[in-house]
Amino acid sequence: SAPIALIAGPCQMESRAHVLECAAAVKEIAGALGIGVVFKASFDKANRTSISASRGVGLDEALPVFAEIRETYGMPVLTDIHSADQCAPVAEVVDALQIPAFLCRQTDILVAAAKTGAVVNVKKGQFLAPWDMKNVLTKVLESGNPNVLLTERGASFGYNTLVSDMRALPVMAATGAPVIFDATHSVQQPGGKGSSSGGERDMVAVLARAAVAVGVAGLFIETHPDPDNTISSDGPNMIALKDLKGLLQELMEIDAVSKKYRATA
Amino acid sequence: SAPIALIAGPCQMESRAHVLECAAAVKEIAGALGIGVVFKASFDKANRTSISASRGVGLDEALPVFAEIRETYGMPVLTDIHSADQCAPVAEVVDALQIPAFLCRQTDILVAAAKTGAVVNVKKGQFLAPWDMKNVLTKVLESGNPNVLLTERGASFGYNTLVSDMRALPVMAATGAPVIFDATHSVQQPGGKGSSSGGERDMVAVLARAAVAVGVAGLFIETHPDPDNTISSDGPNMIALKDLKGLLQELMEIDAVSKKYRATA
Amino acid sequence: SAPIALIAGPCQMESRAHVLECAAAVKEIAGALGIGVVFKASFDKANRTSISASRGVGLDEALPVFAEIRETYGMPVLTDIHSADQCAPVAEVVDALQIPAFLCRQTDILVAAAKTGAVVNVKKGQFLAPWDMKNVLTKVLESGNPNVLLTERGASFGYNTLVSDMRALPVMAATGAPVIFDATHSVQQPGGKGSSSGGERDMVAVLARAAVAVGVAGLFIETHPDPDNTISSDGPNMIALKDLKGLLQELMEIDAVSKKYRATA
Amino acid sequence: SAPIALIAGPCQMESRAHVLECAAAVKEIAGALGIGVVFKASFDKANRTSISASRGVGLDEALPVFAEIRETYGMPVLTDIHSADQCAPVAEVVDALQIPAFLCRQTDILVAAAKTGAVVNVKKGQFLAPWDMKNVLTKVLESGNPNVLLTERGASFGYNTLVSDMRALPVMAATGAPVIFDATHSVQQPGGKGSSSGGERDMVAVLARAAVAVGVAGLFIETHPDPDNTISSDGPNMIALKDLKGLLQELMEIDAVSKKYRATA
Repeated sequence: SAPIALIAGPCQMESRAHVLECAAAVKEIAGALGIGVVFKASFDKANRTSISASRGVGLDEALPVFAEIRETYGMPVLTDIHSADQCAPVAEVVDALQIPAFLCRQTDILVAAAKTGAVVNVKKGQFLAPWDMKNVLTKVLESGNPNVLLTERGASFGYNTLVSDMRALPVMAATGAPVIFDATHSVQQPGGKGSSSGGERDMVAVLARAAVAVGVAGLFIETHPDPDNTISSDGPNMIALKDLKGLLQELMEIDAVSKKYRATA
Repeated sequence: SAPIALIAGPCQMESRAHVLECAAAVKEIAGALGIGVVFKASFDKANRTSISASRGVGLDEALPVFAEIRETYGMPVLTDIHSADQCAPVAEVVDALQIPAFLCRQTDILVAAAKTGAVVNVKKGQFLAPWDMKNVLTKVLESGNPNVLLTERGASFGYNTLVSDMRALPVMAATGAPVIFDATHSVQQPGGKGSSSGGERDMVAVLARAAVAVGVAGLFIETHPDPDNTISSDGPNMIALKDLKGLLQELMEIDAVSKKYRATA
Repeated sequence: SAPIALIAGPCQMESRAHVLECAAAVKEIAGALGIGVVFKASFDKANRTSISASRGVGLDEALPVFAEIRETYGMPVLTDIHSADQCAPVAEVVDALQIPAFLCRQTDILVAAAKTGAVVNVKKGQFLAPWDMKNVLTKVLESGNPNVLLTERGASFGYNTLVSDMRALPVMAATGAPVIFDATHSVQQPGGKGSSSGGERDMVAVLARAAVAVGVAGLFIETHPDPDNTISSDGPNMIALKDLKGLLQELMEIDAVSKKYRATA
Repeated sequence: SAPIALIAGPCQMESRAHVLECAAAVKEIAGALGIGVVFKASFDKANRTSISASRGVGLDEALPVFAEIRETYGMPVLTDIHSADQCAPVAEVVDALQIPAFLCRQTDILVAAAKTGAVVNVKKGQFLAPWDMKNVLTKVLESGNPNVLLTERGASFGYNTLVSDMRALPVMAATGAPVIFDATHSVQQPGGKGSSSGGERDMVAVLARAAVAVGVAGLFIETHPDPDNTISSDGPNMIALKDLKGLLQELMEIDAVSKKYRATA
């Protein structure tokens, strides 16, 4: 019943300068609002729709930048890993390892992430029912790591579309793990643009309001200085940094109402 | 941007005494909270799963009771009709005619309902996309009736399950029609109990919170003095009358936050 | 384990001349192939996407034409009805009444159709699981009519798309009723063209092959002299009369293999 | 338009003795029928529902057994890999590397598999539209490997259920790659048994008949001496070795009809 926290940052670390600019902006917004924040950026987009799409700066270039963000801004950092062998080196410079949705059932990756001792944030696969995340959670817990977050990011709904089932939030919360709502990828239209994925930015706020009213531990929102001009796959889903503060303000107010009633329930 | 209104009442008019008891209770709750209310009850369940299931008191017995509720409690009354020829006689004693979801594309019924001059509340079919309701709305508008409500009540999601896509609410609102969220039927598990439909009562509040945070003109909630012991098909989805007030209080508070931000947007 | 039968004809009775042309062509094709045939045409399209779309010639004009087709060509005739009161007059001139998918749970219509004594063909709603058709079937059987066909025509799959689950065919056949596969409406893209429904004509043959290999009692295929130039909603799904014979020939051959193995199973 | 080929074997290499028994049986059946065959077995089940489920003998123990099967029975061998670094060593002893459905968008794995020069069989993710496999195929082709198979194994359909969209087969075939239908995993009920996955064995033959009638290059069927008593996750979906021959005989006959008509089309 603590107030919502925020996981935010750009889809992709486009360069050191770019990600530091994002981190400074996110830090300032979170500070102004008094919301707990984890900074997020990806060093590799390992499952882009097209083989010729930009994949990011890569592990070697990214690790020192993650360390720099952690030191300079005093924010915990989260990034996503894509194979078991990335877990240990990445965990040395970040606070939380994220398991991508497509990989949420890969036992070796879950176990390797768990064993680093970092917080593990597992995204629910688009192909999974919310109650099936109990088995995923158990894989991490039984590997000796109690610090697990479960993230909702939409379920397959016909072709090239996801739907956000708000019932999934209390179902996953019943496992005891804090539940995050990923408002960015929930509005993705997978494969919807032919050789990249489409999205519906306007729906980020819509779904975030719904999830916060239902009750979540935190929100995952990708943000960018200029989301319409980015090499990232999630350009169509990211919200502009200049719009983040206003949205969070509203969400924090909804959260206060929701948590007040949960506390007395 | 007016505060949410409420459409509430039992699934089915079980008897005159039963429905009057419900009306008195709904009236009192709405009065205590200062929420606008429309009383709802069905005189016929025309599409029960099984042919041997209870269908209600029927048209002839119901009409005087609707008139009595309207007079005694000063509440507008809504009921659902199932064929074109029911529209005119029913509209003489109620304020709003509801088109069931399965029938939302039947042109003759829509036109007959429209021509009565009553408010027409059309439930979105489980098989329809939210943007397809524009054509449905047009059928009523072009029949000369501007008083149309559109109601979200879930979309087919595999077999025996519905999902509530919260993006449907702003999509339908963009037509200009007030949008209602039916929190009762959205949690239905159609056919899920073999020869009747199942449900998940706990999820009524979950989805109602989400919908109100997103922004709706009103809520449709079925309620009953004793929903676990009813001949109605929606027993598993109805909330007990004693729990209605607490839920509405929370929803009105979420609504106030949501509408405040909508107004300034 | 009898060979497949065919229900075929145009989506809509566009005029007496048009439907007689279709009937003559269908009769000739079926005769040449030795396939049992029922002629199908609709007198009213009661659930067109748009209110301004063509609805057909209407009941009064259609009934004598149905009688004429039955007499002239010696073919049984099927048409769809949309309200309980249409059942009796229509049943006087046709052999089979079809219940549209959206209406498959309307008890009054099912009972009225059953009581005429005509064959009743119920299309499975896009929102229903195949096992739920048992309850629908029971409504007709318990009304005293044992001559019921169940038709598969696709299930909702996200928005504006249907999917044909071939497992539905044996599930429905297990009820004991003959199962028909509607290859025309299964490829519909409901609402997919904005103010009318789209389709994928090339997929008619694909799905028909699949259904026949699985094993069905019959096929429902809409056909037209010139499907790209028709006022019918199903233009994009109808196959040209000139292509019907070739398709049926292949399907009858697949059917022979499938039924041979079923017989020995 | 060549006759269907077969990829068959047990879900999991349970032991050297077990897999050799399966290989001998599959070899004999394929020989008797004159159907081209690739032997399949998994050395690791990397995404079992539960962490405590049996994962198989592992890479080191499996490789010499794969080599032995290839030599002893003269059958090409296929197995699935789960990380980029497994590709090269495994490709030394097998003919085809299979990319699991959940991993079908992981660029590094696709490229590593491609670079071995082995045939690459990519299973379509349950979350992907068939037209999205074009991008997946391109990743392998642009890595210099033209020998790619695309396999349909069902699409997410609500929770804990898959549906086989037969339209996916011609859509994927239009890419130019041979298309395989996986009749075993298409009937899986993911997560449906709580801590393992359920299935519907009876539907294997149903869906295989449908796919072959539509037209495929090959079938993927898991088979086992005693599928009701196995440590494998796919027990409920595997067909008994003793039933394989009869099923294939029928499928080959349907295939002959289908390919005859395709050839003249």
